[in-house]
Amino acid sequence: MNMMLLRESDFIAPERIRISGRRTKHIREILKTETGCSVKVGKINGLIGEAVIESDDNNQIELTVNLHSDPPIPLPITLILAMPRPIAFKRMLPAIVSFGIKELHLFSARKVEKSYWSSSVFDELDELVGLGLEQARDTIWPNITLHKRFRPFVEDEVPTILAGKVALVAHPGSGLTCPAGLAEPSAICIGPEGGLTDFELEILLRQGFQAVGLGERILRTEVAVPAIIGRLIHATTKN
Amino acid sequence: MNMMLLRESDFIAPERIRISGRRTKHIREILKTETGCSVKVGKINGLIGEAVIESDDNNQIELTVNLHSDPPIPLPITLILAMPRPIAFKRMLPAIVSFGIKELHLFSARKVEKSYWSSSVFDELDELVGLGLEQARDTIWPNITLHKRFRPFVEDEVPTILAGKVALVAHPGSGLTCPAGLAEPSAICIGPEGGLTDFELEILLRQGFQAVGLGERILRTEVAVPAIIGRLIHATTKN
Repeated sequence: MNMMLLRESDFIAPERIRISGRRTKHIREILKTETGCSVKVGKINGLIGEAVIESDDNNQIELTVNLHSDPPIPLPITLILAMPRPIAFKRMLPAIVSFGIKELHLFSARKVEKSYWSSSVFDELDELVGLGLEQARDTIWPNITLHKRFRPFVEDEVPTILAGKVALVAHPGSGLTCPAGLAEPSAICIGPEGGLTDFELEILLRQGFQAVGLGERILRTEVAVPAIIGRLIHATTKN
Repeated sequence: MNMMLLRESDFIAPERIRISGRRTKHIREILKTETGCSVKVGKINGLIGEAVIESDDNNQIELTVNLHSDPPIPLPITLILAMPRPIAFKRMLPAIVSFGIKELHLFSARKVEKSYWSSSVFDELDELVGLGLEQARDTIWPNITLHKRFRPFVEDEVPTILAGKVALVAHPGSGLTCPAGLAEPSAICIGPEGGLTDFELEILLRQGFQAVGLGERILRTEVAVPAIIGRLIHATTKN
Protein backbone atom coordinates (compact mmCIF):
# COMPACT_ATOMS: atom_id res chain seq x y z
CA MET A 1 0.00 0.00 0.00
CA ASN A 2 1.14 3.51 -0.82
CA MET A 3 -1.06 5.08 1.85
CA MET A 4 -2.75 3.75 4.96
CA LEU A 5 -6.51 4.19 4.95
CA LEU A 6 -7.99 5.37 8.25
CA ARG A 7 -11.50 4.69 9.46
CA GLU A 8 -13.47 6.86 11.90
CA SER A 9 -13.12 4.07 14.45
CA ASP A 10 -9.31 4.29 14.36
CA PHE A 11 -9.43 7.72 16.06
CA ILE A 12 -9.01 7.78 19.83
CA ALA A 13 -8.65 11.59 19.84
CA PRO A 14 -9.05 14.22 17.09
CA GLU A 15 -5.45 13.83 15.95
CA ARG A 16 -4.54 10.46 17.34
CA ILE A 17 -5.22 6.95 16.05
CA ARG A 18 -4.68 3.46 17.35
CA ILE A 19 -4.42 0.59 14.88
CA SER A 20 -3.93 -3.15 15.00
CA GLY A 21 -3.99 -6.18 12.69
CA ARG A 22 -2.95 -6.07 9.02
CA ARG A 23 -1.87 -2.44 9.12
CA THR A 24 0.51 -2.81 12.06
CA LYS A 25 2.02 -5.84 10.35
CA HIS A 26 2.49 -3.77 7.19
CA ILE A 27 4.16 -0.92 9.07
CA ARG A 28 6.53 -3.30 10.83
CA GLU A 29 7.35 -5.76 8.09
CA ILE A 30 7.00 -3.94 4.77
CA LEU A 31 7.58 -0.28 5.53
CA LYS A 32 9.94 -1.20 8.41
CA THR A 33 9.02 2.13 9.95
CA GLU A 34 9.93 2.77 13.59
CA THR A 35 8.74 5.05 16.38
CA GLY A 36 9.20 8.69 15.37
CA CYS A 37 8.93 7.96 11.66
CA SER A 38 5.98 8.97 9.55
CA VAL A 39 3.72 7.14 7.11
CA LYS A 40 1.28 8.45 4.50
CA VAL A 41 -2.34 8.21 5.62
CA GLY A 42 -5.77 9.22 4.38
CA LYS A 43 -9.14 9.22 6.07
CA ILE A 44 -11.98 7.48 4.24
CA ASN A 45 -13.90 10.16 2.29
CA GLY A 46 -11.60 12.77 3.85
CA LEU A 47 -8.18 14.36 3.67
CA ILE A 48 -4.71 12.90 3.11
CA GLY A 49 -1.64 13.54 5.23
CA GLU A 50 0.99 11.91 7.40
CA ALA A 51 0.98 10.06 10.68
CA VAL A 52 3.93 9.81 13.06
CA ILE A 53 4.40 6.62 15.04
CA GLU A 54 4.26 7.47 18.74
CA SER A 55 4.28 4.02 20.29
CA ASP A 56 4.41 0.44 19.09
CA ASP A 57 3.69 -2.41 21.45
CA ASN A 58 2.98 -5.99 20.47
CA ASN A 59 -0.70 -5.57 19.75
CA GLN A 60 -1.14 -2.04 18.51
CA ILE A 61 0.49 1.07 17.16
CA GLU A 62 -0.49 4.63 18.11
CA LEU A 63 0.13 7.50 15.72
CA THR A 64 -0.36 11.29 15.68
CA VAL A 65 -2.16 12.31 12.52
CA ASN A 66 -1.86 15.45 10.40
CA LEU A 67 -4.39 15.51 7.56
CA HIS A 68 -4.04 18.47 5.18
CA SER A 69 -4.48 17.64 1.48
CA ASP A 70 -7.39 16.84 -0.78
CA PRO A 71 -7.50 13.36 -2.32
CA PRO A 72 -7.09 13.13 -6.12
CA ILE A 73 -9.99 14.32 -8.26
CA PRO A 74 -12.40 11.48 -9.10
CA LEU A 75 -12.18 10.13 -12.62
CA PRO A 76 -15.31 11.26 -14.54
CA ILE A 77 -15.77 7.74 -15.90
CA THR A 78 -18.71 5.51 -14.97
CA LEU A 79 -17.96 1.83 -15.50
CA ILE A 80 -20.90 -0.42 -16.38
CA LEU A 81 -19.47 -3.91 -16.21
CA ALA A 82 -21.04 -7.32 -16.73
CA MET A 83 -20.38 -9.13 -13.44
CA PRO A 84 -17.11 -11.00 -14.02
CA ARG A 85 -16.23 -14.48 -12.78
CA PRO A 86 -15.62 -13.85 -9.04
CA ILE A 87 -11.97 -14.97 -9.11
CA ALA A 88 -11.26 -12.42 -11.85
CA PHE A 89 -13.40 -9.75 -10.19
CA LYS A 90 -11.30 -10.08 -7.04
CA ARG A 91 -8.25 -8.96 -9.03
CA MET A 92 -10.19 -6.44 -11.11
CA LEU A 93 -11.93 -4.47 -8.37
CA PRO A 94 -8.79 -3.05 -6.67
CA ALA A 95 -7.48 -2.17 -10.15
CA ILE A 96 -10.72 -0.39 -11.12
CA VAL A 97 -10.71 1.52 -7.83
CA SER A 98 -7.04 2.44 -8.20
CA PHE A 99 -7.86 4.29 -11.44
CA GLY A 100 -10.15 6.61 -9.46
CA ILE A 101 -13.48 5.29 -10.76
CA LYS A 102 -16.26 6.26 -8.35
CA GLU A 103 -19.32 4.84 -10.09
CA LEU A 104 -19.31 1.10 -10.80
CA HIS A 105 -22.42 -0.73 -11.97
CA LEU A 106 -22.28 -4.52 -12.14
CA PHE A 107 -24.94 -6.02 -14.35
CA SER A 108 -26.24 -9.37 -15.44
CA ALA A 109 -26.17 -10.62 -19.02
CA ARG A 110 -26.76 -13.86 -20.89
CA LYS A 111 -23.15 -14.98 -20.37
CA VAL A 112 -22.96 -13.99 -16.70
CA GLU A 113 -23.43 -17.18 -14.70
CA LYS A 114 -26.17 -16.82 -12.08
CA SER A 115 -23.88 -18.31 -9.44
CA TYR A 116 -21.61 -15.24 -9.63
CA TRP A 117 -24.22 -13.21 -7.74
CA SER A 118 -24.07 -15.44 -4.69
CA SER A 119 -20.28 -15.47 -4.57
CA SER A 120 -18.47 -14.77 -1.32
CA VAL A 121 -16.54 -12.04 -3.16
CA PHE A 122 -19.33 -9.66 -2.17
CA ASP A 123 -18.35 -10.16 1.48
CA GLU A 124 -14.89 -8.86 0.61
CA LEU A 125 -15.90 -5.67 -1.20
CA ASP A 126 -14.72 -3.35 1.59
CA GLU A 127 -11.31 -4.97 1.71
CA LEU A 128 -10.91 -4.96 -2.09
CA VAL A 129 -11.97 -1.32 -2.38
CA GLY A 130 -9.57 -0.42 0.44
CA LEU A 131 -6.67 -2.06 -1.42
CA GLY A 132 -7.45 0.01 -4.50
CA LEU A 133 -7.70 3.28 -2.59
CA GLU A 134 -4.47 2.60 -0.67
CA GLN A 135 -2.68 1.78 -3.93
CA ALA A 136 -3.79 5.07 -5.51
CA ARG A 137 -3.47 7.26 -2.39
CA ASP A 138 -7.14 8.06 -2.68
CA THR A 139 -9.79 8.28 0.05
CA ILE A 140 -13.11 8.66 -1.78
CA TRP A 141 -15.15 5.47 -1.48
CA PRO A 142 -16.72 4.41 -4.80
CA ASN A 143 -20.38 3.54 -5.27
CA ILE A 144 -20.84 -0.05 -6.38
CA THR A 145 -24.33 -1.03 -7.50
CA LEU A 146 -25.53 -4.52 -8.43
CA HIS A 147 -28.15 -5.03 -11.15
CA LYS A 148 -29.22 -8.64 -11.37
CA ARG A 149 -31.73 -8.22 -14.22
CA PHE A 150 -30.43 -6.96 -17.53
CA ARG A 151 -33.47 -5.44 -19.17
CA PRO A 152 -34.99 -3.51 -16.25
CA PHE A 153 -31.51 -2.15 -15.54
CA VAL A 154 -30.81 -1.04 -19.09
CA GLU A 155 -34.27 0.31 -19.84
CA ASP A 156 -35.18 1.89 -16.50
CA GLU A 157 -31.90 2.88 -14.84
CA VAL A 158 -29.33 3.36 -17.60
CA PRO A 159 -30.97 6.50 -19.08
CA THR A 160 -30.39 8.34 -15.79
CA ILE A 161 -26.82 7.03 -15.51
CA LEU A 162 -26.02 8.20 -19.04
CA ALA A 163 -27.40 11.73 -18.67
CA GLY A 164 -24.74 14.26 -19.70
CA LYS A 165 -22.18 11.57 -20.55
CA VAL A 166 -20.53 10.17 -23.65
CA ALA A 167 -21.89 6.60 -23.67
CA LEU A 168 -19.73 3.84 -25.10
CA VAL A 169 -20.08 0.08 -25.23
CA ALA A 170 -16.97 -1.99 -25.88
CA HIS A 171 -17.56 -4.35 -28.76
CA PRO A 172 -14.61 -6.22 -30.31
CA GLY A 173 -14.40 -5.76 -34.04
CA SER A 174 -16.51 -2.62 -33.96
CA GLY A 175 -15.57 -0.35 -36.84
CA LEU A 176 -15.17 2.66 -34.60
CA THR A 177 -12.07 2.90 -32.42
CA CYS A 178 -12.59 3.83 -28.78
CA PRO A 179 -11.91 7.55 -28.25
CA ALA A 180 -8.93 8.54 -26.12
CA GLY A 181 -8.24 11.20 -23.53
CA LEU A 182 -11.90 12.22 -23.21
CA ALA A 183 -12.45 15.54 -21.43
CA GLU A 184 -16.22 14.95 -21.06
CA PRO A 185 -17.72 12.64 -18.44
CA SER A 186 -18.23 9.21 -19.94
CA ALA A 187 -19.94 5.90 -19.27
CA ILE A 188 -18.31 2.79 -20.65
CA CYS A 189 -20.13 -0.53 -20.78
CA ILE A 190 -18.02 -3.69 -20.96
CA GLY A 191 -19.74 -7.03 -21.50
CA PRO A 192 -18.95 -10.48 -20.10
CA GLU A 193 -16.22 -12.88 -21.21
CA GLY A 194 -17.60 -14.31 -24.45
CA GLY A 195 -19.34 -11.04 -25.27
CA LEU A 196 -22.78 -9.52 -25.21
CA THR A 197 -25.43 -11.23 -27.32
CA ASP A 198 -26.65 -9.41 -30.43
CA PHE A 199 -29.93 -8.78 -28.64
CA GLU A 200 -28.21 -7.27 -25.59
CA LEU A 201 -26.05 -5.07 -27.78
CA GLU A 202 -29.12 -3.89 -29.68
CA ILE A 203 -30.88 -2.88 -26.47
CA LEU A 204 -27.80 -0.97 -25.34
CA LEU A 205 -27.46 0.81 -28.68
CA ARG A 206 -31.11 1.79 -28.44
CA GLN A 207 -30.31 3.53 -25.13
CA GLY A 208 -27.73 5.69 -26.87
CA PHE A 209 -24.52 3.71 -26.39
CA GLN A 210 -22.06 3.81 -29.26
CA ALA A 211 -20.16 0.60 -30.01
CA VAL A 212 -16.38 1.04 -29.99
CA GLY A 213 -13.43 -1.32 -30.23
CA LEU A 214 -9.67 -1.39 -29.83
CA GLY A 215 -8.72 -2.97 -33.14
CA GLU A 216 -9.62 -6.40 -34.43
CA ARG A 217 -8.12 -8.46 -31.59
CA ILE A 218 -10.37 -9.89 -28.91
CA LEU A 219 -9.15 -9.09 -25.40
CA ARG A 220 -10.12 -10.81 -22.20
CA THR A 221 -12.45 -8.66 -20.07
CA GLU A 222 -9.80 -8.44 -17.39
CA VAL A 223 -7.44 -6.88 -19.93
CA ALA A 224 -10.04 -4.79 -21.78
CA VAL A 225 -11.14 -2.99 -18.60
CA PRO A 226 -7.77 -1.37 -17.74
CA ALA A 227 -7.00 -0.89 -21.46
CA ILE A 228 -10.17 1.12 -22.03
CA ILE A 229 -10.02 3.08 -18.78
CA GLY A 230 -6.35 3.92 -19.41
CA ARG A 231 -7.35 5.08 -22.88
CA LEU A 232 -10.24 7.27 -21.74
CA ILE A 233 -8.32 9.09 -18.98
CA HIS A 234 -8.02 12.78 -19.58
CA ALA A 235 -5.12 14.74 -18.08
CA THR A 236 -6.38 15.88 -14.70
CA THR A 237 -4.16 17.17 -11.97
CA LYS A 238 -5.21 19.18 -8.97
CA ASN A 239 -2.44 21.75 -9.37
CA MET B 1 -9.32 -19.78 -26.89
CA ASN B 2 -10.85 -17.96 -29.85
CA MET B 3 -8.63 -19.76 -32.36
CA MET B 4 -6.59 -22.95 -32.25
CA LEU B 5 -2.90 -22.42 -32.93
CA LEU B 6 -1.31 -24.98 -35.25
CA ARG B 7 2.33 -26.00 -35.23
CA GLU B 8 4.25 -27.37 -38.21
CA SER B 9 4.37 -30.73 -36.43
CA ASP B 10 0.56 -30.96 -36.36
CA PHE B 11 0.48 -31.41 -40.14
CA ILE B 12 0.33 -34.98 -41.43
CA ALA B 13 -0.40 -33.78 -44.99
CA PRO B 14 -0.45 -30.30 -46.60
CA GLU B 15 -4.07 -29.70 -45.59
CA ARG B 16 -4.55 -32.22 -42.83
CA ILE B 17 -3.61 -32.08 -39.14
CA ARG B 18 -3.71 -34.49 -36.25
CA ILE B 19 -3.87 -33.13 -32.70
CA SER B 20 -3.99 -34.49 -29.19
CA GLY B 21 -3.80 -33.30 -25.57
CA ARG B 22 -5.11 -29.92 -24.38
CA ARG B 23 -6.53 -28.94 -27.75
CA THR B 24 -8.64 -32.08 -28.23
CA LYS B 25 -9.96 -31.61 -24.72
CA HIS B 26 -10.88 -28.03 -25.56
CA ILE B 27 -12.67 -29.02 -28.76
CA ARG B 28 -14.66 -31.72 -26.96
CA GLU B 29 -15.43 -30.03 -23.65
CA ILE B 30 -15.51 -26.27 -24.28
CA LEU B 31 -16.39 -25.86 -27.93
CA LYS B 32 -18.43 -29.11 -27.88
CA THR B 33 -17.73 -29.37 -31.59
CA GLU B 34 -18.42 -32.66 -33.35
CA THR B 35 -17.25 -34.42 -36.51
CA GLY B 36 -18.16 -32.33 -39.55
CA CYS B 37 -18.09 -29.04 -37.65
CA SER B 38 -15.40 -26.43 -38.11
CA VAL B 39 -13.17 -24.51 -35.71
CA LYS B 40 -11.08 -21.39 -36.26
CA VAL B 41 -7.39 -22.17 -36.65
CA GLY B 42 -4.16 -20.32 -37.41
CA LYS B 43 -0.70 -21.59 -38.21
CA ILE B 44 2.15 -20.15 -36.16
CA ASN B 45 3.66 -17.27 -38.16
CA GLY B 46 1.25 -18.09 -40.97
CA LEU B 47 -2.33 -17.74 -42.17
CA ILE B 48 -5.65 -18.04 -40.38
CA GLY B 49 -8.63 -20.11 -41.48
CA GLU B 50 -10.91 -22.97 -40.50
CA ALA B 51 -10.47 -26.64 -39.85
CA VAL B 52 -13.21 -29.27 -40.21
CA ILE B 53 -13.20 -32.20 -37.83
CA GLU B 54 -12.87 -35.41 -39.87
CA SER B 55 -12.44 -37.97 -37.14
CA ASP B 56 -12.30 -38.03 -33.35
CA ASP B 57 -11.11 -41.10 -31.50
CA ASN B 58 -10.13 -41.27 -27.86
CA ASN B 59 -6.59 -40.09 -28.28
CA GLN B 60 -6.60 -37.72 -31.21
CA ILE B 61 -8.62 -35.61 -33.59
CA GLU B 62 -7.93 -35.26 -37.32
CA LEU B 63 -9.00 -32.14 -39.18
CA THR B 64 -8.90 -30.81 -42.75
CA VAL B 65 -7.44 -27.32 -42.79
CA ASN B 66 -8.20 -24.35 -45.03
CA LEU B 67 -5.91 -21.39 -44.30
CA HIS B 68 -6.72 -18.24 -46.26
CA SER B 69 -6.47 -14.98 -44.28
CA ASP B 70 -3.67 -12.83 -42.96
CA PRO B 71 -3.30 -12.50 -39.19
CA PRO B 72 -3.97 -9.05 -37.68
CA ILE B 73 -1.34 -6.38 -38.29
CA PRO B 74 1.28 -6.29 -35.49
CA LEU B 75 0.96 -3.41 -33.04
CA PRO B 76 3.81 -0.95 -33.67
CA ILE B 77 4.53 -0.77 -29.95
CA THR B 78 7.71 -2.10 -28.37
CA LEU B 79 7.29 -2.87 -24.67
CA ILE B 80 10.36 -2.50 -22.46
CA LEU B 81 9.29 -3.94 -19.14
CA ALA B 82 11.12 -4.42 -15.86
CA MET B 83 10.88 -8.15 -15.21
CA PRO B 84 7.75 -8.53 -13.04
CA ARG B 85 7.30 -10.92 -10.13
CA PRO B 86 6.88 -14.29 -11.91
CA ILE B 87 3.38 -14.95 -10.60
CA ALA B 88 2.22 -11.60 -12.03
CA PHE B 89 4.21 -12.09 -15.24
CA LYS B 90 2.37 -15.34 -15.83
CA ARG B 91 -0.90 -13.40 -16.03
CA MET B 92 0.65 -10.44 -17.84
CA LEU B 93 2.38 -12.21 -20.72
CA PRO B 94 -0.77 -13.64 -22.40
CA ALA B 95 -2.38 -10.20 -21.99
CA ILE B 96 0.61 -8.42 -23.54
CA VAL B 97 0.63 -10.88 -26.44
CA SER B 98 -3.14 -10.58 -26.94
CA PHE B 99 -2.71 -6.85 -27.67
CA GLY B 100 -0.52 -7.73 -30.65
CA ILE B 101 2.82 -6.63 -29.20
CA LYS B 102 5.66 -8.32 -31.11
CA GLU B 103 8.71 -6.85 -29.39
CA LEU B 104 9.02 -7.41 -25.65
CA HIS B 105 12.20 -6.60 -23.75
CA LEU B 106 12.40 -7.69 -20.12
CA PHE B 107 15.05 -5.84 -18.15
CA SER B 108 16.58 -5.81 -14.71
CA ALA B 109 16.38 -2.85 -12.34
CA ARG B 110 17.14 -2.10 -8.71
CA LYS B 111 13.70 -3.29 -7.60
CA VAL B 112 13.68 -6.44 -9.74
CA GLU B 113 14.58 -9.32 -7.44
CA LYS B 114 17.45 -11.40 -8.82
CA SER B 115 15.50 -14.60 -8.16
CA TYR B 116 12.93 -13.62 -10.82
CA TRP B 117 15.45 -14.49 -13.52
CA SER B 118 15.74 -18.10 -12.43
CA SER B 119 11.98 -18.58 -12.20
CA SER B 120 10.34 -21.59 -13.82
CA VAL B 121 8.03 -19.14 -15.64
CA PHE B 122 10.65 -19.03 -18.40
CA ASP B 123 9.97 -22.72 -19.09
CA GLU B 124 6.34 -21.81 -19.79
CA LEU B 125 6.94 -18.97 -22.24
CA ASP B 126 5.73 -20.94 -25.27
CA GLU B 127 2.50 -21.92 -23.57
CA LEU B 128 1.83 -18.38 -22.27
CA VAL B 129 2.53 -16.81 -25.67
CA GLY B 130 0.25 -19.40 -27.30
CA LEU B 131 -2.59 -18.47 -24.94
CA GLY B 132 -2.24 -14.81 -25.90
CA LEU B 133 -2.17 -15.53 -29.64
CA GLU B 134 -5.18 -17.86 -29.43
CA GLN B 135 -7.10 -15.24 -27.44
CA ALA B 136 -6.43 -12.57 -30.10
CA ARG B 137 -6.74 -14.82 -33.18
CA ASP B 138 -3.19 -13.93 -34.07
CA THR B 139 -0.39 -16.16 -35.36
CA ILE B 140 2.75 -14.00 -35.34
CA TRP B 141 5.08 -15.13 -32.58
CA PRO B 142 6.52 -12.21 -30.58
CA ASN B 143 10.21 -11.71 -29.86
CA ILE B 144 10.96 -11.79 -26.14
CA THR B 145 14.43 -10.72 -25.07
CA LEU B 146 15.89 -10.87 -21.56
CA HIS B 147 18.35 -8.23 -20.36
CA LYS B 148 19.74 -9.11 -16.96
CA ARG B 149 22.00 -6.05 -16.56
CA PHE B 150 20.35 -2.63 -16.57
CA ARG B 151 23.11 -0.33 -17.63
CA PRO B 152 24.64 -2.30 -20.52
CA PHE B 153 21.10 -2.85 -21.81
CA VAL B 154 20.07 0.79 -21.62
CA GLU B 155 23.33 2.25 -22.87
CA ASP B 156 24.31 -0.29 -25.54
CA GLU B 157 21.07 -1.82 -26.80
CA VAL B 158 18.28 0.67 -26.15
CA PRO B 159 19.51 3.25 -28.72
CA THR B 160 19.00 0.70 -31.52
CA ILE B 161 15.59 -0.32 -30.14
CA LEU B 162 14.44 3.31 -30.01
CA ALA B 163 15.51 4.25 -33.55
CA GLY B 164 12.57 5.78 -35.40
CA LYS B 165 10.23 5.45 -32.43
CA VAL B 166 8.50 7.77 -29.96
CA ALA B 167 10.19 6.75 -26.70
CA LEU B 168 8.20 6.98 -23.48
CA VAL B 169 8.90 5.90 -19.92
CA ALA B 170 5.95 5.54 -17.54
CA HIS B 171 6.58 7.55 -14.40
CA PRO B 172 3.72 8.11 -11.93
CA GLY B 173 3.22 11.76 -11.12
CA SER B 174 5.03 12.89 -14.23
CA GLY B 175 3.67 16.25 -15.34
CA LEU B 176 3.15 15.08 -18.90
CA THR B 177 0.18 12.82 -19.64
CA CYS B 178 0.86 9.76 -21.77
CA PRO B 179 -0.13 10.42 -25.39
CA ALA B 180 -3.06 8.46 -26.83
CA GLY B 181 -3.81 6.82 -30.16
CA LEU B 182 -0.25 7.19 -31.45
CA ALA B 183 0.10 6.66 -35.20
CA GLU B 184 3.92 6.49 -35.04
CA PRO B 185 5.81 3.41 -33.84
CA SER B 186 6.56 3.74 -30.14
CA ALA B 187 8.62 2.19 -27.39
CA ILE B 188 7.19 2.31 -23.89
CA CYS B 189 9.31 1.53 -20.83
CA ILE B 190 7.50 0.46 -17.66
CA GLY B 191 9.49 0.04 -14.46
CA PRO B 192 9.12 -2.46 -11.63
CA GLU B 193 6.55 -2.46 -8.83
CA GLY B 194 7.86 0.23 -6.49
CA GLY B 195 9.20 2.25 -9.40
CA LEU B 196 12.49 3.01 -11.09
CA THR B 197 15.14 4.67 -8.95
CA ASP B 198 15.98 8.34 -9.70
CA PHE B 199 19.29 7.14 -11.10
CA GLU B 200 17.64 4.62 -13.43
CA LEU B 201 15.14 7.20 -14.63
CA GLU B 202 17.95 9.66 -15.30
CA ILE B 203 19.83 7.14 -17.44
CA LEU B 204 16.65 6.40 -19.41
CA LEU B 205 15.91 10.09 -19.95
CA ARG B 206 19.47 10.53 -21.19
CA GLN B 207 18.74 7.93 -23.89
CA GLY B 208 15.84 10.02 -25.15
CA PHE B 209 12.88 8.61 -23.25
CA GLN B 210 10.24 11.11 -22.21
CA ALA B 211 8.60 10.58 -18.80
CA VAL B 212 4.81 10.35 -18.98
CA GLY B 213 2.07 9.53 -16.49
CA LEU B 214 -1.63 8.78 -16.32
CA GLY B 215 -2.62 11.28 -13.65
CA GLU B 216 -1.50 11.46 -10.05
CA ARG B 217 -2.60 7.98 -8.99
CA ILE B 218 -0.04 5.20 -8.69
CA LEU B 219 -1.10 2.04 -10.53
CA ARG B 220 0.26 -1.45 -10.02
CA THR B 221 2.49 -2.52 -12.92
CA GLU B 222 0.02 -5.23 -13.84
CA VAL B 223 -2.64 -2.54 -14.31
CA ALA B 224 -0.39 0.12 -15.82
CA VAL B 225 0.75 -2.17 -18.65
CA PRO B 226 -2.70 -2.77 -20.23
CA ALA B 227 -3.75 0.81 -19.39
CA ILE B 228 -0.83 2.31 -21.31
CA ILE B 229 -0.94 -0.15 -24.22
CA GLY B 230 -4.70 0.40 -24.56
CA ARG B 231 -4.05 4.11 -24.56
CA LEU B 232 -1.31 4.03 -27.19
CA ILE B 233 -3.20 1.84 -29.68
CA HIS B 234 -3.89 3.60 -32.94
CA ALA B 235 -6.86 2.56 -35.04
CA THR B 236 -5.48 -0.13 -37.33
CA THR B 237 -7.65 -2.47 -39.30
CA LYS B 238 -6.58 -4.51 -42.25
CA ASN B 239 -9.62 -3.53 -44.31
